[in-house]
Amino acid sequence: MIDEQCEKAAAWFAELRDQLCRDFERLEETFTESPDPAGHFIRTSWRRQGEPENPGNEDLGGGEMALMHGRVFEKIGVNVSVVNGTLNPEFRRAIPGGDAAQGRFWAAGISVVAHPRSPLVPAAHMNTRMISTDHGWFGGGADLTPTFPDKTDAEDFHAALKAACDTHAVADYDRYKAWCDRYFYLPHRQEARGVGGIFFDELASGDWSADFAFVRDVGLAFRDAYGRLVARHLHTPWNDEQRRAQLIKRGRYVEFNLLYDRGTTFGLKTGGNVEAILMSLPPAVIWP
Amino acid sequence: MIDEQCEKAAAWFAELRDQLCRDFERLEETFTESPDPAGHFIRTSWRRQGEPENPGNEDLGGGEMALMHGRVFEKIGVNVSVVNGTLNPEFRRAIPGGDAAQGRFWAAGISVVAHPRSPLVPAAHMNTRMISTDHGWFGGGADLTPTFPDKTDAEDFHAALKAACDTHAVADYDRYKAWCDRYFYLPHRQEARGVGGIFFDELASGDWSADFAFVRDVGLAFRDAYGRLVARHLHTPWNDEQRRAQLIKRGRYVEFNLLYDRGTTFGLKTGGNVEAILMSLPPAVIWP
Repeated sequence: MIDEQCEKAAAWFAELRDQLCRDFERLEETFTESPDPAGHFIRTSWRRQGEPENPGNEDLGGGEMALMHGRVFEKIGVNVSVVNGTLNPEFRRAIPGGDAAQGRFWAAGISVVAHPRSPLVPAAHMNTRMISTDHGWFGGGADLTPTFPDKTDAEDFHAALKAACDTHAVADYDRYKAWCDRYFYLPHRQEARGVGGIFFDELASGDWSADFAFVRDVGLAFRDAYGRLVARHLHTPWNDEQRRAQLIKRGRYVEFNLLYDRGTTFGLKTGGNVEAILMSLPPAVIWP
Repeated sequence: MIDEQCEKAAAWFAELRDQLCRDFERLEETFTESPDPAGHFIRTSWRRQGEPENPGNEDLGGGEMALMHGRVFEKIGVNVSVVNGTLNPEFRRAIPGGDAAQGRFWAAGISVVAHPRSPLVPAAHMNTRMISTDHGWFGGGADLTPTFPDKTDAEDFHAALKAACDTHAVADYDRYKAWCDRYFYLPHRQEARGVGGIFFDELASGDWSADFAFVRDVGLAFRDAYGRLVARHLHTPWNDEQRRAQLIKRGRYVEFNLLYDRGTTFGLKTGGNVEAILMSLPPAVIWP
């Protein structure tokens, strides 16, 4: 039963990856005002490294990075992964059901980070994942990081995520929105990373199909809403001063990801794939 | 007695700052091949924020940042600070004599981070500090981060620091060099940050004047050796490919400072001055 759920979740993450890559490539193709060529995703796969404490362990899974450098997206990554293995005793205590499962875990997910070229197009992040130990659960979220916050954009993005939550009884929009604001915050700057979105974790309502249906809709809501925002601002001319503000804003993004983001620091400290984890870092940044 | 030592150390850090700023400005002035204007340091002072757990605390000290954007140095910061206060119980246990002094501490230091414009001129870092709780001690070091490691540069830099150590019985060059290599290392990349130098901490031999004399010589050795390296490579032309390699290398510098550097993470988590702490971050960086 659990195996079947894992397969379904992993298949969905791969399908959503294909949809997103197609959408983002279409945006590249239609942006013919730019003298630069349209970007295309390049896919690179990786295998999860052996666990030193479990020598002789069989296939530990891996992932596929899709990375594009284009004329709309200066850098955009869409990563999927399906991994399994045995957590060491330190980490198994930190994860629900980790002890009960004697550290055995399975995890799959999709992660998107978009850094557009235009400072008027917001950067964005979306991630959904399923993790299984002695039981399975979902986590994820989506959030927006504009350099120049725009009321309509934020309202549109929040409304799309609210709609995704409101059609699923297992989701709690207000809680997920507050969780996102709390999570994507830089205490040392006393600054939010962006304008928020939703964040959720350990979603296991008891009805796996209902949880999964919600997680699918988070991905689809992000796909729709973010595509709309990109198209809305893509054709607006921008200047050097706006570009400079964008490069500085991206520095805050780096500070958050390296100082506070649990996915990044946990991944780097547990032998995750460095290139896949750090694909979130912006293509060009300044700290004046 | 301790007060007199604190005053002497703080006065030295300010004097060394003046010397370094003069040297670096002279390098700017003599580099007349560049069409850009010579840079000059701009100084900004800051006061240490009040400690919420010790309301009504008197003057907690502060510091002065000297920052230059020039034609030799794309960004170079020389910071000094003299602060005091009461550590909260969590932090006082982590610091020698912190408990015995009931958390009262005094600290002064100088910190230099140089990011040259030319990819052929190594980036460099130097820091020395005195900290006092129920007793006083010194810490610090100097290290070099070239984009294109050069054997002569590394030998020259290491020899200068070795000479500084070898003329002081209180110093142990081999131990400090190994400490530096261990400290400035990125485990997730399995990569050294640069080519090393020296790193030392909790230096309190029992002869304060001897320790202080060594610490002064570390600063002077850095000043001499780094000035020489900059002058050696400054006039060599460089190309876009080398520049790109430098911007990527700088990304590793950011990763180290935000993921691992204790000074940075400790400073940001204990309400240090954000602008002064993050002055170490490079002016322009790429993560391709």
